[in-house]
This record gives sequence, C-alpha cells and structure tokens, in this order.
Amino acid sequence: MSTPPAPSPPATDRSGPALDDLLGIADDALLAAQWLGGWIAEAPVLEEDVALANIALDQLGVARALLAHVGELEGAGRGEDDLAYWRGPEEFRNALLVERPDKRDFAVGVVRLLLLSTAQLHRYAALRSSPDPVVAAVATRAVTEVSYHRDHARGWLLRLGDGTPESHDRVQAALDAEWPYLAEVLEPTTDEEVRAVLTRDIADATLRVPADPPNPTPYAGGRAGRHTPHLTAVLEELQQVARAHPGASW
Amino acid sequence: MSTPPAPSPPATDRSGPALDDLLGIADDALLAAQWLGGWIAEAPVLEEDVALANIALDQLGVARALLAHVGELEGAGRGEDDLAYWRGPEEFRNALLVERPDKRDFAVGVVRLLLLSTAQLHRYAALRSSPDPVVAAVATRAVTEVSYHRDHARGWLLRLGDGTPESHDRVQAALDAEWPYLAEVLEPTTDEEVRAVLTRDIADATLRVPADPPNPTPYAGGRAGRHTPHLTAVLEELQQVARAHPGASW
Repeated sequence: MSTPPAPSPPATDRSGPALDDLLGIADDALLAAQWLGGWIAEAPVLEEDVALANIALDQLGVARALLAHVGELEGAGRGEDDLAYWRGPEEFRNALLVERPDKRDFAVGVVRLLLLSTAQLHRYAALRSSPDPVVAAVATRAVTEVSYHRDHARGWLLRLGDGTPESHDRVQAALDAEWPYLAEVLEPTTDEEVRAVLTRDIADATLRVPADPPNPTPYAGGRAGRHTPHLTAVLEELQQVARAHPGASW
Repeated sequence: MSTPPAPSPPATDRSGPALDDLLGIADDALLAAQWLGGWIAEAPVLEEDVALANIALDQLGVARALLAHVGELEGAGRGEDDLAYWRGPEEFRNALLVERPDKRDFAVGVVRLLLLSTAQLHRYAALRSSPDPVVAAVATRAVTEVSYHRDHARGWLLRLGDGTPESHDRVQAALDAEWPYLAEVLEPTTDEEVRAVLTRDIADATLRVPADPPNPTPYAGGRAGRHTPHLTAVLEELQQVARAHPGASW
C-alpha cells in the first residue's frame, strides 16, 4: 500500500532561492544582454561582434527563462514580458555592475564581462543542485554557456593586459573602475572562490588586483532596489517599444 | 597533349559582380546588422529580441564574408576590418534604406526588414550562379538565411497590418515612409519580381501599396557614395572602438 502524497507546501514556503534572489540573477542577465547587444558591429574587430552577440543571446536566454519562472512562482499572472517591460527601476534587483554605461570602452566591456561571468559561473554551479527543478535545469545549461563567456573575457584580459603598454594601462584603468562593483554580484558562499579565480586571472594578465573600496556603500544597492540614475535611462530604452504598445496586442 | 592553361585575366577584367556592387551588398548587410543589433532586449516581446539578434548575426556574417572577399579582389592588402572600420562615409555603397534612424519604431523596423530582405533574397538567388565561386558560395548560404528573415518580417507585417486599427495605421505610416527608399535596393533584373512579391504581401496584410515618389532623387544616392548625414553618425558609433586602437594590436 502506498502512502498518500504529501500535500503541496504553500507557495510562500517553497524551497529553492527566494524570489528576490532569482530576480537578481535574471536582471543581471537581462541588463548584460542589452549592454552586450549594443556592441554588435562595434567591437574592434568584426569577428568579435559575432562572439559578443552570441554571448548577449545566451544571457538573454537565461533572463527569459528565470523571469518566466519568477512569474509562475509569484502566481500573480505576470509573464516574462511583464517582468521585463513593466517594472519600474526600484523593482529591478540587478547589481550596479551591469547598469552603468560602458561608454563603448572595450577594456571596460572586457573587465565587466569577466567579473560578471566569473560570479555567474559560481552562482549557477551552486544552483544546479537547487531543490527547484526549473532553477536546477536553467542553471545546468547556463553553466556551460557562461563558462564560454568567461573564457572569452579572460582571453581578452590576457591579450590586453600582456599586450602593448597602452592596452595594459587601459585595461588596468578599467579594472580599477569596475572592481568596487564586484562585491555586489558575489554571494557569501562563493565570494572567496570567485576572488581567488579572478586574482589568478589578473596576475596572468600581468595586471594588479585593485584594493577594495574603503566604503563599499556607493558601489552596491541594486539588489535592494536602490539604483543609479543610469538604470532609469537604460530601462527607458529597453521598455519604450513594449510600453508604446500596451497589451502587446500586436 | 593538353593545351597550356590560358593566362589569368587581369584583375580588372574579372568576371562576377563589380567590386562596387559587391560593396553595396556587403554594406547593406553591415548596416542592417548594426541597426538590428541595437534592438536586442528592446523589441515589444523578449522572444522577438532573440529573433532579431539572430537576424543581425546572419547579416553580419554575409557582410564579413563579402568584405573579406572584396579585400582579396582589390589586392591592396585591406581585410574585412579595414573595409568596415577605416572607410569614410563617401566610400560606403549601402542604400539609404539602411542608414536612416528607425527611432525604435517597431513598425519601421518590420517594414524596413521586409523591403531589405525581399530585395536581398532575389539578389542572392541570382548570385548563386555567379562565375565567382566565393560569391556563389556566400549567396547560396545567404539565400537560406534571408528567406527566414523575410518570413519573419512578413509575419509581423500581417500581424500588425491585420491587427488593431492602431497597429494597422502605424505600419501603414511606416510603409509610406520607407517605400520611396525601396528602388535603390533593387536591381533592374529583379525589380519587377520583388515589387510583385511585396505587393502581394502588402495586400495580404490589408495594407495599401504606396505610390512611388514623383522625384526619386532624394531617396537614393548611397550606391554612388552620396549619403545622408545619418551615415556619418552611424559610422562614428560603428568605427569608434576600432579607430581608438589603430592597428588592432590588441
């Protein structure tokens, strides 16, 4: 005789990452996709555009899958498009790392992608064993993709860092500028490992690991919905088409 | 006894499309890639971003292959990156259709992609039998890709044209605005066929075929290097990263 199935736990008591944490992961990927998509046909070599566009597509895929899942878990009838296009800046949970303009500085792009993808890799790797089967499935696929993103960014870091004096100085400057924003994309459980990996990458590229900022406050806040004015500008761009056609009846 | 091989014809006497014609095809695709890439994560639904990004990648692939081939045929040591990043506006041969801003109007994007991809489809189909084997190979692959681009744009034209009164009016306005630029992307040999196809698409979408402009002069000139100021702005964006790092030593 089989025992009767246990009753489903109430939605608020579900296991797996908290909704806000999932939103943070999804929003990082969504903003990374938009930022990287803007590089199409604008990198220093045309071949690189293809790589960046493919990375943007991978990031967008993760964002879509997780936003759709968050919508289901919420149970309030919001879908991926609602979450992408109809939230205000204060409802976004992305880290500040991915919302600031890169001013089409390729060195900034490389450094930012390295910091982001290294953090994502360790985060996704941990989520492969999530009790939430959807999260586990998305994470498993994303690990493979983001490993490639990391290899790609690392390859450029080595090439730029160990390249000409000018490229070395530019990428060091980019690293100094982006480094303070790293902490917000890290988790307590992966912090040490990610920093160790990045420290080795940076040394391999003959670059210097920047000091952590004495006061981390200005470099974080996005996870709690406290964003820079840049996010408002980015979202205006991201959301204007969808909002001009509410209901997406077209 | 075999006869001795005929001497190679001088480069100026080569068969296959003229270099300027090839540049026109490549530049149309390059500018389309940049324009479509800008739509990543900005379409009315997230699913559409993935489609547009993939279309941008296809267009970029054709541009790269043809620019590399033009560089070889020129025999002056210029590669695809030189041609993409180091020509001035007056050396570009793209049609005006693809250089003007779309102001993130999705209806304009749909119409422009439909006009461009229909013209490209017929152009590439003809080039499959080019005596230049590289051109024939690129065209063969591009026909498959651009058929998909056309189907995609046509699907949206039907959905918007036969949708709400608002979407109908918007896409008709986009069609009216873009139509005068069609002539420049057409070839005498394919003009009639492309117009017949588009006329049917437009009727299927319950839209009206615009009248051709009484004076076509303002709507063409790109093939001869006479561009609008918009191209200068687009190229500044496209070329700034590569030009900031001449020699691409990084």
